[in-house]
Amino acid sequence: MRVPQAMKDLPLPKVYQLLEPGPVVLLTTALKGRANVMTMSWHMMVEFEPPLIACIVSNANWSFAALRATRQCVIAIPALAMAPKVVKIGNCSGRDVDKFKRFGLTPIPAETVAPPLVAECFANLECKVVDTHLVNRFNLFVLEVQKAWIDPAQKHPKTIHHHGYGKFAVDGAMITLKSSMP
Amino acid sequence: MRVPQAMKDLPLPKVYQLLEPGPVVLLTTALKGRANVMTMSWHMMVEFEPPLIACIVSNANWSFAALRATRQCVIAIPALAMAPKVVKIGNCSGRDVDKFKRFGLTPIPAETVAPPLVAECFANLECKVVDTHLVNRFNLFVLEVQKAWIDPAQKHPKTIHHHGYGKFAVDGAMITLKSSMP
Repeated sequence: MRVPQAMKDLPLPKVYQLLEPGPVVLLTTALKGRANVMTMSWHMMVEFEPPLIACIVSNANWSFAALRATRQCVIAIPALAMAPKVVKIGNCSGRDVDKFKRFGLTPIPAETVAPPLVAECFANLECKVVDTHLVNRFNLFVLEVQKAWIDPAQKHPKTIHHHGYGKFAVDGAMITLKSSMP
Repeated sequence: MRVPQAMKDLPLPKVYQLLEPGPVVLLTTALKGRANVMTMSWHMMVEFEPPLIACIVSNANWSFAALRATRQCVIAIPALAMAPKVVKIGNCSGRDVDKFKRFGLTPIPAETVAPPLVAECFANLECKVVDTHLVNRFNLFVLEVQKAWIDPAQKHPKTIHHHGYGKFAVDGAMITLKSSMP
């Protein structure tokens, strides 16, 4: 188990660098003191700073009610080693099971929201819902990142990208091309 | 130059498998008969079928006016070999230059929309805008894919994922884990 003190602040203007590549992430919520976690691939950056994120949380998901009611969540980014667990988290429901317990995830209290960070993830983003206009039509939430954490002990983590039905591309080579764009 | 006839129909329920992994894509638009293309990383799936996609097209981009006025675009997905070109496309504006000409891209007429497909890309998605509620606040468009094309000559294309400032992760190993989820 990683100690919470290992987490460091990530400056908010760097948050997009974590999500723009499109990794599979975990989303934690909390309702009436009970935390839950789901697997999520449908998310995108909306703004650099303050960092805004859009995501789809289906109303078929147990997390939907908590996110809509509390307007708070944490986006936690798992590295490759967690892939088998990430898939299992996505294949069961918080309706039936305490997923933190079942999958041995370590919840850490967040600073600005009620849902917990996930200690095993290399990055955690504390988020509040800032727009719900498209929730009824598309299950689309817009979030603002309040605080971001990074685990410096996980160096150069490789993330996973879902191609459907449990097939994932793992980050391979990193290339750098001359660009004037952030 | 690849001949247009090489493109095959991709069944619409498979579209999410192309975008869910978070690749950098190109977006084509057309205004008053003039086509333009931009580089885009802020997009996500919204629904499986009909395939809905959300994307951010900044109002600082030349493409914004065309997309808002015509409500049509094509999302074209480039493989790794196009990476240098993709970055250059993202580093200039259709305000100043005909990017199809400058970068030697081959426009192919789409079937259901006015903006062209990009022959060099391994997949092309013809899209119409179906929701503009969040355009003013967030530059967020919701698109519905009308028709999808795949180039079977490009087998197992590797895509690129932007980490900021021209740094990209290239698709590496593919792994498959047992999952009951699409």
